[in-house]
Amino acid sequence: MQYPDYVLIMAGGVGASFWPLSNKHCPKQFLDVMGTGQTMLQQTYNRFCKMLPKENIYVTTFQNYTALVHEQLPGLPEENIIGEPLRKNTAACITYTCFKLMKKNPEATLLVAPADHQILNEEEFQRVCEKGSQFVMNRDALVTLGIKPTYASTGYGYIQKYHQEVESDIYPVRQYIEKPYLELAKSFIKNDNFLWNSGIFIWKIKDVLKACKAYLPELFYLFDNARNTLDTLHEEECLKDVYEKCQNISIDFGIMEKADNVFIIPSSFEWCDLGTWSSAWENMEKDYQSNAVTGNNVVVIESARCVVHAAPEKIVIVEGLEDYIVVDTKDGLLICRKEKEKEVRSYIAEIKKTKQN
Amino acid sequence: MQYPDYVLIMAGGVGASFWPLSNKHCPKQFLDVMGTGQTMLQQTYNRFCKMLPKENIYVTTFQNYTALVHEQLPGLPEENIIGEPLRKNTAACITYTCFKLMKKNPEATLLVAPADHQILNEEEFQRVCEKGSQFVMNRDALVTLGIKPTYASTGYGYIQKYHQEVESDIYPVRQYIEKPYLELAKSFIKNDNFLWNSGIFIWKIKDVLKACKAYLPELFYLFDNARNTLDTLHEEECLKDVYEKCQNISIDFGIMEKADNVFIIPSSFEWCDLGTWSSAWENMEKDYQSNAVTGNNVVVIESARCVVHAAPEKIVIVEGLEDYIVVDTKDGLLICRKEKEKEVRSYIAEIKKTKQN
Repeated sequence: MQYPDYVLIMAGGVGASFWPLSNKHCPKQFLDVMGTGQTMLQQTYNRFCKMLPKENIYVTTFQNYTALVHEQLPGLPEENIIGEPLRKNTAACITYTCFKLMKKNPEATLLVAPADHQILNEEEFQRVCEKGSQFVMNRDALVTLGIKPTYASTGYGYIQKYHQEVESDIYPVRQYIEKPYLELAKSFIKNDNFLWNSGIFIWKIKDVLKACKAYLPELFYLFDNARNTLDTLHEEECLKDVYEKCQNISIDFGIMEKADNVFIIPSSFEWCDLGTWSSAWENMEKDYQSNAVTGNNVVVIESARCVVHAAPEKIVIVEGLEDYIVVDTKDGLLICRKEKEKEVRSYIAEIKKTKQN
Repeated sequence: MQYPDYVLIMAGGVGASFWPLSNKHCPKQFLDVMGTGQTMLQQTYNRFCKMLPKENIYVTTFQNYTALVHEQLPGLPEENIIGEPLRKNTAACITYTCFKLMKKNPEATLLVAPADHQILNEEEFQRVCEKGSQFVMNRDALVTLGIKPTYASTGYGYIQKYHQEVESDIYPVRQYIEKPYLELAKSFIKNDNFLWNSGIFIWKIKDVLKACKAYLPELFYLFDNARNTLDTLHEEECLKDVYEKCQNISIDFGIMEKADNVFIIPSSFEWCDLGTWSSAWENMEKDYQSNAVTGNNVVVIESARCVVHAAPEKIVIVEGLEDYIVVDTKDGLLICRKEKEKEVRSYIAEIKKTKQN
């Protein structure tokens, strides 16, 4: 068994998408959107606890949420919670953490995963993590996990692999493709070479920093220059300065799409990036009318394919709705057609702006 | 000008119909269902304050609500709030109050009105009140106000008048008709002789008691025997006993449908018995899409003919609904098609029963 030496869980998201349940005080990774009894972060953390000692699991988040992480993961050593002074996307987050881990062991393997993904087949996930770790151990390779599509999603990015494997079930990456329109997505799923981009990576610490130096040198040197302050009393002040100056770019766009040593492992561990209520609905337990209901006092009448989320004690009656989202909290109530969720999100942003002024 | 000498506002309803806004702790007459800034009781009271001194206005209610009445009508003398020990419908309520008022002046005219009706044209209402008071002053007559129907309502009872007036615009009543089915309602509104039953009455105190003695003698004598205890320390105890024994019957069914001295005044004071959210919607101010919205932070998108009610501070987004009721409170949330409101009410009763067990 060769699991990664370290795991980095990225839990810095803003969480606009699960309004009114999520908000800037509590983004979705800190919520139990699915009504499972665990928040998304807790689920992700517990998944990795089965593979490696918790001392080797790190969680990065926006610094305002470090207390929330600590509260939700009381078993995680406090020094493993890394607060970022600003939100600067995944490239900065990963580079910062890798510079810190470099001091422990540059040869170590690291798995990086978002805190808010759902994975149902843990056994298969462990198998893929092991495979990826073994692959990168002895070569300078950046591995990404690709999900075999189960439908023509227009909500996920895709990665096209080459046809020829380099090792059993590991392929070089040919290109990254942004969220496609429906016709394109339909053609992708007919072709074995197109996989969903899961945003889960495996590499050696020194290898990803090497790639960073090559493709994002400006960002690399900002952190490199601050290197001596890491784990000292000056770290916080210095990092604030680095984050202010550094580029806001994703690791995919900044490094993975440019590097020539990127490989992908096609996987089927029943993965889902819960970016919307509709995607949550697809993965929630449902009644015989395909309604997914969270709350102890919800009555659903003549309704189908709805997601209904309410506080446990609130009495909710939903009648005559098909394919709707109904989410109620103390502060907000959302009722909208599932197909209109993304459009409605712009109204939410607008309201929030108005309320702040 | 001859307004009635006394007014009795009946505010004893249970208020199941405006769930989740109304509940047994706060029936609809104590609520601002329409978002006008006044509760229904306050609106009704203020309407009569323009006609007669407040010392002559009485409010009856279930005894648990007397404090609520006092709170909402601080100007009303406390002794004018009459608490009933049990809910026993309008015949008992009116008989009890009339026995109390008998002691003041049996010749006095009395107008009886429910607390939860909406009246938009106050000038016309005053005109009709005056007309009715003048009519009953010099004759033993029971007057009821009839509303000229504006549509084929299946939610109101109807009264058929005789064609021949006894005095300018005052007619003898021919028969009472329960809430009709749609085809029948359609035929009624083509005929000038059918009017909505408003449940607002005008008579002399001694005349309604005389009718009570004739048509509900058992009920009459129960109160008559308790007469000497009224306005004494023994009233409460004695009344409890009377109410336990007395019949649960409406004044319409018990007296008005049987008496031969009943007259009706056809009126057009833009009346509405707000028995349901749908009827409230019809009478509320609406936006250009015919949505009636209460709440300061409600956004309605691609929706039409909805009634949306929320607490002022709650952020509500409603998208893609047509002809729906959306009512949100701290304890409950109702989303249902307007046409299904009555059916849904049975579910609410069911839930309440379950919650009590």
